Amino acid sequence: MWDPSWQDGTGSLPDQLAHELRHRIARGSISSGSLLPSERALAAQAGVSRTTVGLAIDLLEAGGWCTRRARSRAIVCLPDIHEQGLAPRPASNAAFDPFSALVAAPAALLEDAVERARSRLTPHLLGDGRLLGGLAELRAGIADRLTADGLATTREQVIITNGAMGALSAMLDATRGPVLVEDPTYHVALRLLASRSRRVVAWGRGPSWDVDALHGVLRREKPSVAYLIPDFHNPTGALAGNPERDALAGLERRVPLIVIDETLRELDLRDGDRNLDRPAMPRHLAELLPDAVTIGGFSKIVWSGLRIGWVRAPQRAQRESLRRFTDVQPVPVFEQLIATELLPHLDEIIATRTGRLRVQRDALLAGLRGHGLQVVTPPGGLVAWVDLGAPVADELVARLAPHGVLAAPGREFGSAHRHARFLRVPFTSDVGVLAQATERIAGELEVVRRRKA
Amino acid sequence: MWDPSWQDGTGSLPDQLAHELRHRIARGSISSGSLLPSERALAAQAGVSRTTVGLAIDLLEAGGWCTRRARSRAIVCLPDIHEQGLAPRPASNAAFDPFSALVAAPAALLEDAVERARSRLTPHLLGDGRLLGGLAELRAGIADRLTADGLATTREQVIITNGAMGALSAMLDATRGPVLVEDPTYHVALRLLASRSRRVVAWGRGPSWDVDALHGVLRREKPSVAYLIPDFHNPTGALAGNPERDALAGLERRVPLIVIDETLRELDLRDGDRNLDRPAMPRHLAELLPDAVTIGGFSKIVWSGLRIGWVRAPQRAQRESLRRFTDVQPVPVFEQLIATELLPHLDEIIATRTGRLRVQRDALLAGLRGHGLQVVTPPGGLVAWVDLGAPVADELVARLAPHGVLAAPGREFGSAHRHARFLRVPFTSDVGVLAQATERIAGELEVVRRRKA
Repeated sequence: MWDPSWQDGTGSLPDQLAHELRHRIARGSISSGSLLPSERALAAQAGVSRTTVGLAIDLLEAGGWCTRRARSRAIVCLPDIHEQGLAPRPASNAAFDPFSALVAAPAALLEDAVERARSRLTPHLLGDGRLLGGLAELRAGIADRLTADGLATTREQVIITNGAMGALSAMLDATRGPVLVEDPTYHVALRLLASRSRRVVAWGRGPSWDVDALHGVLRREKPSVAYLIPDFHNPTGALAGNPERDALAGLERRVPLIVIDETLRELDLRDGDRNLDRPAMPRHLAELLPDAVTIGGFSKIVWSGLRIGWVRAPQRAQRESLRRFTDVQPVPVFEQLIATELLPHLDEIIATRTGRLRVQRDALLAGLRGHGLQVVTPPGGLVAWVDLGAPVADELVARLAPHGVLAAPGREFGSAHRHARFLRVPFTSDVGVLAQATERIAGELEVVRRRKA
Repeated sequence: MWDPSWQDGTGSLPDQLAHELRHRIARGSISSGSLLPSERALAAQAGVSRTTVGLAIDLLEAGGWCTRRARSRAIVCLPDIHEQGLAPRPASNAAFDPFSALVAAPAALLEDAVERARSRLTPHLLGDGRLLGGLAELRAGIADRLTADGLATTREQVIITNGAMGALSAMLDATRGPVLVEDPTYHVALRLLASRSRRVVAWGRGPSWDVDALHGVLRREKPSVAYLIPDFHNPTGALAGNPERDALAGLERRVPLIVIDETLRELDLRDGDRNLDRPAMPRHLAELLPDAVTIGGFSKIVWSGLRIGWVRAPQRAQRESLRRFTDVQPVPVFEQLIATELLPHLDEIIATRTGRLRVQRDALLAGLRGHGLQVVTPPGGLVAWVDLGAPVADELVARLAPHGVLAAPGREFGSAHRHARFLRVPFTSDVGVLAQATERIAGELEVVRRRKA
């Protein structure tokens, strides 16, 4: 027998049963491709009549969640959201989008959060829907998480933004002058800089954060902003150690504003199970740079369909300057309510997600290395930065695209000439998809190499 | 007796009854400040026991929706979302924020839309949550509305954005060079231009759209983008007539990209009830400018807490260029589902909203004119553009602020010297609030004038 709470929802009993079955299919407790249990079995499990079960299965079928032939049991399927035009269609089953390093939502927890958020919406509807600076509870929750992780933060220091890139966008809007970035760096940040015609000062930081090289750059250029990703850097996955962070402590004297991107900090894929054997995370860089601004968001750790980002700005003047830009493009109220309801579950969501990502990362790396490719194991994040051994990334990507393997070429992440031999490959797909993609990458790379030779 | 559908919700019976009562309070069918009906009366109306009613009232009280003293009936109140830190606190009861020209949500329709959206979320949770370009159904719905209103539009031409200003922001990101704007123009657009260091070319268009003056500007300057608000212009409220639109038809030969802001087009406050006696709206400007891009959104016509905007870009190259910026900052999936569910109700929402706005506008204008102030009746939109008769707007605004009357000074909307005698006053508050604000504006203006004299 099922827990009877499935009957607590809205609508008729067949409606509610169909809803429950959709959830069980979406969450995998009834597998796609399997036979749906018989009407008799479902009626017994759910404690309802066979008529109710029959009506519920009709609803499932109408929504594309199963198919039936006369006198046969229904076969479970997942509705094709691509067919329905609800999402972009991948070029093939083995597709991964080069710029998509994103995974499916924690469906059960997210749906529950939506339900609780709904019950809290009413008082907001009486107002104008502008939560300037963001929902107080959400700001407090994010401040508490940072504080618990060693970076003392007050609610007032946090501003909610349209995703982490909404935070960076507001920082750029609030400043002028050249921007120092690591080379390579996150391609979306580079697009934002280009769209604002900001001069980019590249710090080719080498395999580690080479502070000597940085001082050379600072002597030649006078950036007014620095954008750094010390925690599971995108695209390299690298994690700056405490000595490297210490060496960066003087940076505030040289650059007026430092923006630290912690979007991936919680996707720690280092060895060790559930924090037991895993080494401690290095300090938040902002602990060493008291005026620096830190940004983060929910898209990478929860779901990209949820657009909640945040800025931690320790100085009042920074916040006032930022608010000029964040207040005119407020974050949807309902999204903020959902995020607030998710806060108590973030640790659980992250533990599940990192567990899966670790398996997928290891499968991808084993596949690539099995074909002789060089790749440093990323200690965290969502992507691997693969060395092709020769500057052939563009050509390889062009050959992979028709097969739906849309890996991203290195030049998207910074200096074209430095990164032409690198390919960014996300490990966010299932192991099976990753295996097909690995085969295809190795095969096409072989063709490209032979041509060059 | 109530319609028994209130019992269709989630939770225990007292929970559901409390939910229903909150809705009735929020929607005004039980007035804030009144006595709540007796337990006996409520039990009879709702068809439940007095015990259930008692438990429901306990829940209401706990949530700040009523107060009780021993042996008295409960007094209904609205929970103070400001007290709870959920929204910014206005400086006084008579406050209106200068930049807030926004109104409460159509609560019942919006809550129903949230409920239906929730039931459609599950399949999306299986994907990565990136609806590139936007949810197909929502794009189709917006295209259909534009087509029905005379501007033939296909689904493919529509891109969903983070509010209308998200649309303008992406347009600016996708272009270079000076931007022509009407002077005055929407202050948020000016902020976006300033943040991107774009040179502003001001077209002081006079009381109407003075195309001769425009040609003078175009001879002197070579803007690469023009941003125009022909439909209930912000801040003046003016509506360009068909002859003025015809005169603009040649603009495409002079300016590479024209962006038409139709955010306020549906807030038609001209005389005539529910379209019967009201004159037809002028043609969409895009009907005369086939390559122009049109932007709009749900914030002003539904609720500012919902952040859904759109771009209609007729040319494929425009869309590809825009998508580079909109795809990296996608619009939340749930917001798009809510907006989709609202589509069938937009006409009803707009009719209710414009009815209320018309009464409020007329009350504000009568009050201001009663004090001898000059103001042209805005035929649509959310604000009045008040001529103070002398360049004292800044000083007046500074004196009003401590009283919570935060009207906006003209210089925020363009050339400081041209608009220093204008005040933008939203008529989105209740008539009572508007009356207090009018008194205060007139009183402080008198003080300012006496000082100057």
